[in-house]
Amino acid sequence: MFTLFDYLPSQNGWKVRQLLAHLGRPYRTELVAIFDGEGQNADFLRINPTGTVPAIRLDDGRTLAESNAILAFLAEGTPYLPGDAFARAKVLQWLSFEQERVESTIGALRHWRLTGKLGRRPPELVAMKHEAALRALALLDAELETRAFIAGDAYTIADIAVFAYAAHAEEAGCAVHGLARFDRWLARVRAQPGHLATTYAYATDPHSSRELPRAPLRVASAAAPASAGRDVAGPG
Amino acid sequence: MFTLFDYLPSQNGWKVRQLLAHLGRPYRTELVAIFDGEGQNADFLRINPTGTVPAIRLDDGRTLAESNAILAFLAEGTPYLPGDAFARAKVLQWLSFEQERVESTIGALRHWRLTGKLGRRPPELVAMKHEAALRALALLDAELETRAFIAGDAYTIADIAVFAYAAHAEEAGCAVHGLARFDRWLARVRAQPGHLATTYAYATDPHSSRELPRAPLRVASAAAPASAGRDVAGPG
Repeated sequence: MFTLFDYLPSQNGWKVRQLLAHLGRPYRTELVAIFDGEGQNADFLRINPTGTVPAIRLDDGRTLAESNAILAFLAEGTPYLPGDAFARAKVLQWLSFEQERVESTIGALRHWRLTGKLGRRPPELVAMKHEAALRALALLDAELETRAFIAGDAYTIADIAVFAYAAHAEEAGCAVHGLARFDRWLARVRAQPGHLATTYAYATDPHSSRELPRAPLRVASAAAPASAGRDVAGPG
Repeated sequence: MFTLFDYLPSQNGWKVRQLLAHLGRPYRTELVAIFDGEGQNADFLRINPTGTVPAIRLDDGRTLAESNAILAFLAEGTPYLPGDAFARAKVLQWLSFEQERVESTIGALRHWRLTGKLGRRPPELVAMKHEAALRALALLDAELETRAFIAGDAYTIADIAVFAYAAHAEEAGCAVHGLARFDRWLARVRAQPGHLATTYAYATDPHSSRELPRAPLRVASAAAPASAGRDVAGPG
């Protein structure tokens, strides 16, 4: 029995919930009110120094963070992570792809759009992420010509990870028409036994329109070596 | 014997070269002139659909991409990736951290700064990445209070990955004074037997000041469902 630190509207949290649903593994949940600043509490920073969810704490006190690392840990020895070294590495390849080209594009735009932050972001940044999101979806569609699932012929944690945000591209303003192979893959994932269709709207958290609280950054940057301890909000 | 597809100024490429130097494993190198568009050639896109280096091709033709996935594959069964499931997962946690908070901040700023692209980037994006880079370095310094290496008491691929760009923060305009634990860790990494001190300047590639060539993006976005096949350069 371990503890999952979660924030329900987070699809990174969904990834772990989905795998745990497949595995039928019992766990405790502790919700972290990230927009209220609970991610920056000293207690939580000891669990995950980046202050983000999901994270897990084993009963012996050891902690693990980063959704894709948690997926790999929990899937070890199960059908959701292959035992063969090369097949495992292909799963890791697509977990890296997901982090850089799906979560950081569709995930970011979806968060900003659903919580009213899109207009507060630099328009060029929004445009860059939007284009990168469409490229990622087109790439996935092309890749799925040769195989049924993201990292091979079987459903793995790579499918769980990519699905988490890619399935919600429309909410991110990144829906694409005509990606037939991608759409069939979405359907195959939804048809998995134990598929967790439940998601939680940001709107259930009245504080989700706030910017994520962050601790002051106190470092002495090389640009201002004489002013140790100043707050740094941008390039010196 | 396998083939490493590499671009010498890439520190993502350095990660793989460094591990291979530790392992003393022979390999062939094929250089990919990414700023000349070779990453977008049909042949290379079959090796890595994102068009980036590094990637590897085994002698049986199977290919693997994403630097951190390649590290994990090559380190399997060696001292550079622990066998224990939890210890492995901690390595993956820090590989995820590196990808999101080191490579995408220090790596991007260093690339832009050393190739004359910084002034072409949205200033707010540069400022966001700069602040995120300083936060990542400060976090690493704090983490290294409790242990000698990134993911535990032993040097692993997590150290190789984080070192690749974090050691070059000054070239990215992100040098920070007074991170004594981080600086001692840099020294411990440099003292590893077989440490690969060689890096390659972008200036050795006369085309590195170009933007990375990319194929046209031809998708029908939901914002313009009637215009299938148009080029999409930003949000519809």
